[in-house]
Amino acid sequence: MPKLDLKSIPQTNTTGYPAEFADIVAERWYRRLAPASGITDFGVSHVELKPGAWSAQRHWHENEDEFLVMLSGKAVLVDDAGEVELAAGDCATFPKNDGNGHCVINKSAEPCEFIVVGQNENGPCHYPDVDMYWSGRGRITRKYGTPI
Amino acid sequence: MPKLDLKSIPQTNTTGYPAEFADIVAERWYRRLAPASGITDFGVSHVELKPGAWSAQRHWHENEDEFLVMLSGKAVLVDDAGEVELAAGDCATFPKNDGNGHCVINKSAEPCEFIVVGQNENGPCHYPDVDMYWSGRGRITRKYGTPI
Repeated sequence: MPKLDLKSIPQTNTTGYPAEFADIVAERWYRRLAPASGITDFGVSHVELKPGAWSAQRHWHENEDEFLVMLSGKAVLVDDAGEVELAAGDCATFPKNDGNGHCVINKSAEPCEFIVVGQNENGPCHYPDVDMYWSGRGRITRKYGTPI
Repeated sequence: MPKLDLKSIPQTNTTGYPAEFADIVAERWYRRLAPASGITDFGVSHVELKPGAWSAQRHWHENEDEFLVMLSGKAVLVDDAGEVELAAGDCATFPKNDGNGHCVINKSAEPCEFIVVGQNENGPCHYPDVDMYWSGRGRITRKYGTPI
């Protein structure tokens, strides 16, 4: 059946961030739903943020649109305009190359869950608040490609 | 801000189905979130099914993967394997070209809501239960392209 058994899909907190920038995502637990279910047109992640966890360092993609819908709990969406609360059913989109770094932070005392959709080949990613850059291939570097 | 004000995005029950097959989607109310928010990599619809409404005639796409996540209420996912209930937080994927016609029916007494994601250019679509076919361009026809 097409209905997914989420609990059977491995949950991971793996990150490619270098250690100095990775503490905020240590309690970001996610499941990759597309490879687990045979779809390839786009990527879908089910993300659980424990209290205090961030979805990512604040970032924007050059070549990847993103869509997020909250499923449970509460979180704060942070971007250049400030902060706004997200609760179950709230949706947000992050158009590619808009230069507006965004992330979602669980500032509540309970876990929260959301779905995020993006392309599979997502190219360069910029992180305005930290000295980090991802070309879309290989390891994350400092800005201008300097190895970390 | 990237957070969407869903109520400001027009909701429609428009369908391209010919009248003889359209009654089941008359109370399918949807919002197209991608054009409203400037993303183009994939399509996203917020769908509300009133009691008794269907998401679509049971169908499968040759060239379009689909992903669905329930937001509120209850619905029944129907495919070749039978029926399974969907409640808030449940996810389903429909891989392209799997030949397994699917739809979601609200058999409850309350509205339900879900998000569905797909590609924008979705090519041929097959409807196993009715004499209908969509080439991906122009009007829906009967099977083998006969005009309705």
